[in-house]
Amino acid sequence: MNHPALAALLSCLGPDRARTDDFCRALYSQDDTPARSLPEIVLFPHSHDEVVQLVQIAAKYRLPLTPRGAGSGNVGGALPLAGGAVVSFECMNQVLEYAPKERLIRVQSGCITAEIDQIAASDRLCYPPDPGSSPYCRIGGNLAMNAGGPHAVKYGVTRDYVLGLKAVTGTGDTLQTGVRTSKGVVGYDLTRLLVGSEGTLALITEATLRLVPRPESRALLRAAFRSSEDACAAVLRVMGQLQTPSAVEFMDSQSLAAVRAMGAAKDLPDGSQALLMVEVDGSTESIPVQLAALETAIQGEGLLQLLSGQDRTSQEALWAARKSLSPATKAMAPLKINEDVVVPVPQLPTLLAAIDEIRQELDLQIVSFGHAGNGNLHVNILVDPSRAGELERARRGLDHLFRTVLASGGTLSGEHGIGSVKRDYVALELDPVALDLQRRIKELFDPLGILNPGKVFPHE
Amino acid sequence: MNHPALAALLSCLGPDRARTDDFCRALYSQDDTPARSLPEIVLFPHSHDEVVQLVQIAAKYRLPLTPRGAGSGNVGGALPLAGGAVVSFECMNQVLEYAPKERLIRVQSGCITAEIDQIAASDRLCYPPDPGSSPYCRIGGNLAMNAGGPHAVKYGVTRDYVLGLKAVTGTGDTLQTGVRTSKGVVGYDLTRLLVGSEGTLALITEATLRLVPRPESRALLRAAFRSSEDACAAVLRVMGQLQTPSAVEFMDSQSLAAVRAMGAAKDLPDGSQALLMVEVDGSTESIPVQLAALETAIQGEGLLQLLSGQDRTSQEALWAARKSLSPATKAMAPLKINEDVVVPVPQLPTLLAAIDEIRQELDLQIVSFGHAGNGNLHVNILVDPSRAGELERARRGLDHLFRTVLASGGTLSGEHGIGSVKRDYVALELDPVALDLQRRIKELFDPLGILNPGKVFPHE
Repeated sequence: MNHPALAALLSCLGPDRARTDDFCRALYSQDDTPARSLPEIVLFPHSHDEVVQLVQIAAKYRLPLTPRGAGSGNVGGALPLAGGAVVSFECMNQVLEYAPKERLIRVQSGCITAEIDQIAASDRLCYPPDPGSSPYCRIGGNLAMNAGGPHAVKYGVTRDYVLGLKAVTGTGDTLQTGVRTSKGVVGYDLTRLLVGSEGTLALITEATLRLVPRPESRALLRAAFRSSEDACAAVLRVMGQLQTPSAVEFMDSQSLAAVRAMGAAKDLPDGSQALLMVEVDGSTESIPVQLAALETAIQGEGLLQLLSGQDRTSQEALWAARKSLSPATKAMAPLKINEDVVVPVPQLPTLLAAIDEIRQELDLQIVSFGHAGNGNLHVNILVDPSRAGELERARRGLDHLFRTVLASGGTLSGEHGIGSVKRDYVALELDPVALDLQRRIKELFDPLGILNPGKVFPHE
Repeated sequence: MNHPALAALLSCLGPDRARTDDFCRALYSQDDTPARSLPEIVLFPHSHDEVVQLVQIAAKYRLPLTPRGAGSGNVGGALPLAGGAVVSFECMNQVLEYAPKERLIRVQSGCITAEIDQIAASDRLCYPPDPGSSPYCRIGGNLAMNAGGPHAVKYGVTRDYVLGLKAVTGTGDTLQTGVRTSKGVVGYDLTRLLVGSEGTLALITEATLRLVPRPESRALLRAAFRSSEDACAAVLRVMGQLQTPSAVEFMDSQSLAAVRAMGAAKDLPDGSQALLMVEVDGSTESIPVQLAALETAIQGEGLLQLLSGQDRTSQEALWAARKSLSPATKAMAPLKINEDVVVPVPQLPTLLAAIDEIRQELDLQIVSFGHAGNGNLHVNILVDPSRAGELERARRGLDHLFRTVLASGGTLSGEHGIGSVKRDYVALELDPVALDLQRRIKELFDPLGILNPGKVFPHE
């Protein structure tokens, strides 16, 4: 404990909440990527004021700070690449204000996302953004990455539910943004500048979130198709009619093979090469109307089977194939490279054709599924690094994938973000003027470069 | 025509589209405020590339540029306070791409807002933001101010429908922001940084806008109340149940008096002191369910009359009182100071009580109405500047109003913006750290300070 910054942090939070032991440092050296990077110290502040103190100490000693929610991110955003301190928000999990009549909740950034929604449920309200990790991820991480989820197709993403933020800039200044009303146009939109900035502009300590009425009922359709092309055509018909579904999830033939190998999806008809899950929600009276419209839209070339589930048990049975995908893909190879590219919905067939080409030309295992209503697919390249050249072929596959996505009018990431993993692809998508302005905005908020270094921006 | 900047602009656009005649300069010296400010030249570019050229000339000669849509703004945002050039986007009114299957439209920023919605209507889609000026205002102005409108209570504001922008910074650089997909998290959100920045960061030349399914049907309820307090209690009940209405418009007793003086609203029961208009929209089947829920919510203390309109004719009859308000208030006094403050919905009674106090203590005519479901009221102070001290009393009234709004957790503007009119109140709302960061962001985008000078920021 010779480093004066570490000593100052320890004296600020005490030994229980400023940890330098090997076990704790190892625990906070990783996220949901295979990479590892050891911090020098792990900090567990309780309050905004403590975060201010931490940042002021870090600024004084130029110590890198890496903010962390639950560490469930897929792009290395929470890895302390430059060492320094990990600032874990796990202990900042207080609900500061819940005002159902104003349809808002104000929380510390360490609150668990699903728990926020559960509080709202007590007044038949809802916090819609629901990334797959919502039972354990923290709202601060969702804000940093602008998290999405399957219901984004109807309800939008994290950005759309943030009224205001409290944060600490890289100079240790407290920044208040936004409003607590549903409208407000005073000044530049710093709220949405911070959302999605991946902890590089400021550490978010509090958020005022907008709540909406909770849907009374939901129902589910599961449609099996003879080919991915037929399923994509159905997605386009679904998104081309007036009843916006609450989820449109897609699984390709490789996904179906993976879950079949685990013994799931036994009830699919022979020849099923793609699956769609289409969910609707709303008032109980609206469900039959919505279902009828969606069943009509799904009908078409290549449909092999269409099942509906209106009660909870039958819906869970229909979701089973989709839910078994994550363990199924993890069992396929030691390394899963999980991309979340987006293309315009009419371009989904182009994207899937390119993935087939990559699979065949580069002899790679690729499993693709995801939020087809947003054109947002999770493309998982399953790699065994011990096999000669496989990592290099995966890298070439990613290059091909990203170029196809951008040529189709798409974007490199719909919800995972850039982090450290995708930073060298950012310049393919953003124009130099935009990138330069972003670098200079970063310098304004964090002139010392201590906030989450090594993220978002390409290597220079 | 000695000024070399004017000569360069004239040679760039030609005399038809670079106007220095007194008539044209006078026409473009005003917006929907009483103030006037003469530009030296009025420019009518046709294309993004022409805008780049204009800004490069202006940058070279340090000539102020004031962007302008239809000039329908209420806060002096389009006034060329520092002289220089007005850049009118009226001739940039092309639809560049309409892709109903992608639910998007890409337009030049001079397109008329309602016309964008009309194009979408041909595919049963809709562009929801509908400021009162939508039949003649330009989308670029809506983007600059983050315009709202009565339907914001259900559909949100301009910001929520922008996928991406093309713009020209104060250095004449072309900036592309955003995506054309419904999700995207690559880089900082420069799109929403530009939306609401009132032309001070960049001149927006193109926008890619998100479209949504068009509601099939709508229905209207009109409720007369014995007092504003009773009407506010009903607004709270309406916003506290699960069927989000598509509009919740409020008129106070002074508004009713004004329209009665014009001969309208004769069918209101005696003793009506406040009126609510509550609209629902959606699929035809959903309308009766929504209406039933809202009728229940509206029922309560002080309700004198509740009428419903389900066909177009009866709805128009019910809207008549509300629609006659604008001409009615214009007839009341030479000067209308039109504020659009917002408070949390439960604080509406506090706001209305403060307005009563201001009216009585300062002997002012004040007519208040607006988007009560968002807590967003238009507070119109009607002033005859020829009456001794009346302008000064109005100024004191505004001070009182703004302080009440901020003390209630509200914001100074829900949809009109800051412009030149409210700039000296901004520091009451924004904290110094946020304001300082905004000034420095302005310097990044417009280091020469040529874009819409004299707007948004307080005098230093």
